[in-house]
Amino acid sequence: MKQLSVTHLLGIKYLKQQDIDLIFETANHFKEVINRPIKKVPTLRGNTIVNLFFEPSTRTRLSFEIAAKRMSADTFNISASTSSATKGESLIDTARNIAAMNPDIIVMRHSHSGAAQMLTKYIDASIINAGDGTHEHPSQGLLDMMTVQDHKGRLAGLKIAIIGDILHSRVAHSDILGFTKMGSSVYVYGPATLLPKGLGELGAVVCSSLEEAVRDADVIITLRIQLERQNDQLFPSLREYSQKYGITREIVALAQPDAIVMHPGPINRGIELMADVADGPQSVILDQVTNGVAVRMALLYLVMGNS
Amino acid sequence: MKQLSVTHLLGIKYLKQQDIDLIFETANHFKEVINRPIKKVPTLRGNTIVNLFFEPSTRTRLSFEIAAKRMSADTFNISASTSSATKGESLIDTARNIAAMNPDIIVMRHSHSGAAQMLTKYIDASIINAGDGTHEHPSQGLLDMMTVQDHKGRLAGLKIAIIGDILHSRVAHSDILGFTKMGSSVYVYGPATLLPKGLGELGAVVCSSLEEAVRDADVIITLRIQLERQNDQLFPSLREYSQKYGITREIVALAQPDAIVMHPGPINRGIELMADVADGPQSVILDQVTNGVAVRMALLYLVMGNS
Amino acid sequence: MKQLSVTHLLGIKYLKQQDIDLIFETANHFKEVINRPIKKVPTLRGNTIVNLFFEPSTRTRLSFEIAAKRMSADTFNISASTSSATKGESLIDTARNIAAMNPDIIVMRHSHSGAAQMLTKYIDASIINAGDGTHEHPSQGLLDMMTVQDHKGRLAGLKIAIIGDILHSRVAHSDILGFTKMGSSVYVYGPATLLPKGLGELGAVVCSSLEEAVRDADVIITLRIQLERQNDQLFPSLREYSQKYGITREIVALAQPDAIVMHPGPINRGIELMADVADGPQSVILDQVTNGVAVRMALLYLVMGNS
Repeated sequence: MKQLSVTHLLGIKYLKQQDIDLIFETANHFKEVINRPIKKVPTLRGNTIVNLFFEPSTRTRLSFEIAAKRMSADTFNISASTSSATKGESLIDTARNIAAMNPDIIVMRHSHSGAAQMLTKYIDASIINAGDGTHEHPSQGLLDMMTVQDHKGRLAGLKIAIIGDILHSRVAHSDILGFTKMGSSVYVYGPATLLPKGLGELGAVVCSSLEEAVRDADVIITLRIQLERQNDQLFPSLREYSQKYGITREIVALAQPDAIVMHPGPINRGIELMADVADGPQSVILDQVTNGVAVRMALLYLVMGNS
Repeated sequence: MKQLSVTHLLGIKYLKQQDIDLIFETANHFKEVINRPIKKVPTLRGNTIVNLFFEPSTRTRLSFEIAAKRMSADTFNISASTSSATKGESLIDTARNIAAMNPDIIVMRHSHSGAAQMLTKYIDASIINAGDGTHEHPSQGLLDMMTVQDHKGRLAGLKIAIIGDILHSRVAHSDILGFTKMGSSVYVYGPATLLPKGLGELGAVVCSSLEEAVRDADVIITLRIQLERQNDQLFPSLREYSQKYGITREIVALAQPDAIVMHPGPINRGIELMADVADGPQSVILDQVTNGVAVRMALLYLVMGNS
Repeated sequence: MKQLSVTHLLGIKYLKQQDIDLIFETANHFKEVINRPIKKVPTLRGNTIVNLFFEPSTRTRLSFEIAAKRMSADTFNISASTSSATKGESLIDTARNIAAMNPDIIVMRHSHSGAAQMLTKYIDASIINAGDGTHEHPSQGLLDMMTVQDHKGRLAGLKIAIIGDILHSRVAHSDILGFTKMGSSVYVYGPATLLPKGLGELGAVVCSSLEEAVRDADVIITLRIQLERQNDQLFPSLREYSQKYGITREIVALAQPDAIVMHPGPINRGIELMADVADGPQSVILDQVTNGVAVRMALLYLVMGNS
């Protein structure tokens, strides 16, 4: 059996190109399973998967849980609000305690960048990073790449435009690392205050206008604006944000005629993405969600195979 | 196989008499399963059921979850507090995202009347309405009818008294629609401010006294008074409410000697229902709960058969 | 088959010595299962276990849930915040309603001492007490004893030191009852305000210094200080608490050279237990957690066998 070159899935950064190819191949196999009337295989029967979420999440947690149960694993959900974290226990103690119950995989979301990686030093279970601070969200990056691969038949040579709050977006970070690794060219644009330094070193081209980023693009990825950050005055009013960075039909018309539009969700309709684009023929947002389950089945399966 | 005439279960309103008969017949079959030592059948193995609750619920959610797992389905619970709903995502986007993960059935509770029906226009999964605003709560209506059928052997020709806050009660609404459809006569009584217009068109007789509603009744259904509405001054003090609308032994004595007393729970003991009646020989409140699991097994099974 | 002498697991108080031996024997059998690659047996397939937690809990709830699923039972989690308890329903009504859905076992945590026992009068399902107020936490007591048995090969004749807030600790209460029942000698020490009366009647020796309690001990059990109680001024500042009652390497050195150190978790590092002791060679804290799953598998299995 082909195997991943890593034992944990901490970030796109640590994956080789052949790892990503193997994940896509495996995910495509599981996509068939998902479309059967009986959407269940016994692959991970008797395995224990803990979803340890220190930040609220519906879709990522649900996607991992569906992925696990479709492979017959037992899943357990722990959310921060019910966790000993509220009793002041350290992340390491919490994780060690869970690890002492012999789970096979811990899927973790945490508000601190690097939290998943730190844990690997302290516990035996395999870790899948489901989002760590502003660092990485590798399963989202992989499902984004898989969705582009599905629609374009390739990743190499494509122009990918990523628009919005790059600074706080772990999705953007994983996407930039992944798409450039697979040979796409990534162009980013957003409010100057929300463009981190070092984007060039990651392989992205920082644009000076929305038009520059989007023109002739094969893929437009618009990021969720985090309304809760508005008090920080990192971007202008929502109205201004929408006018300067929102993806409209006119903006999409600048891209390739067969360009696809993506968003990691949940969408702020009318702010970073107009409703007619979100629901229009070039939107592949729901394909992203469907691919998410398949990618996570592949990740759980491959990580288990390595442990 | 006999099938429902509907693909979604949105309300009693949309069910034909033969649908209700089929649901009872199927539920009675599953009641046997529930009484076995191994309370599990493989009927829905590999099927995915999402409980999407935008309002808090213990008993209805638990009842649906038990029903699903007893048929070997995989279940997933999403509650509003942990949902993207708190990030401002629209109901339609939330539901579409969940639907993109290919569930077979979404069981939804929502505070807006008509929410379940609206969703059916946007997603492919079958929808079961687990309560929408003040509109309908069809599985509760069905379990109420099934409980009466169990104890009385029939529904046609019975006098059903429904007492309390009719205006805000989706249970009352589903009950009135269901019992009248099956040939019972429904008499309602409650504070004038809590009696909606149009009850006559639904087929209910609005009474002018508690005695009139209850006299010679075969069934007394008392509704939960929603204490959180007391600030609206829609009803007098709890003490007055209890004196004028509370079901006591004396009130029950006005009904048929073998009348049964029902309540959808949770009970405010001493307010709408006195403790000695709730725990007395004519109370069938816990039978309602037991039948709830059987009815929900039937609904999940029949809705799946139609999809 | 050997059986427990009780139908519910309410407290160590109600167990005979042979019950405890049977639990250990059964738990040791399940420990093998836990170490297999496929950590699952069909023992409780088709059985329904409800975790009804009126107090927040991560580890105990997770431990019971893992135990149940490893034996293929269906599990259902109900936490107080989502429960009808918030709608003013009485504990008895909530429990009766859940019982009407035919669960086999209800695992309950509640803030009132005696809550689990009271329920047994009202419902048919078997009850396992997962912590009732300051009364008992029998599964924790059993896993503590099992961990000592594992490391020492016996319980009879050992000196067990229990240090800290004895007054509020259901763990301490269950430990004292269990270890003395099995022939250990239990020495307790803590702030005078946190030492309840009647410890002597329970069979514990109340010490007048930390040194007296710990000297030559085979086992040191340090209790979690409940920071939320600090406002009650039942103990001095955390700094003073740590200096007078905290377990340091120097304190551990007073015990037997092969003494083991235990803590029910979550640990307040640097307060009741120093980090170097918690992570040191004499700490068996994570063994407690691992044994917790095996003990709970045994309890669920044996209680089911009696019902």
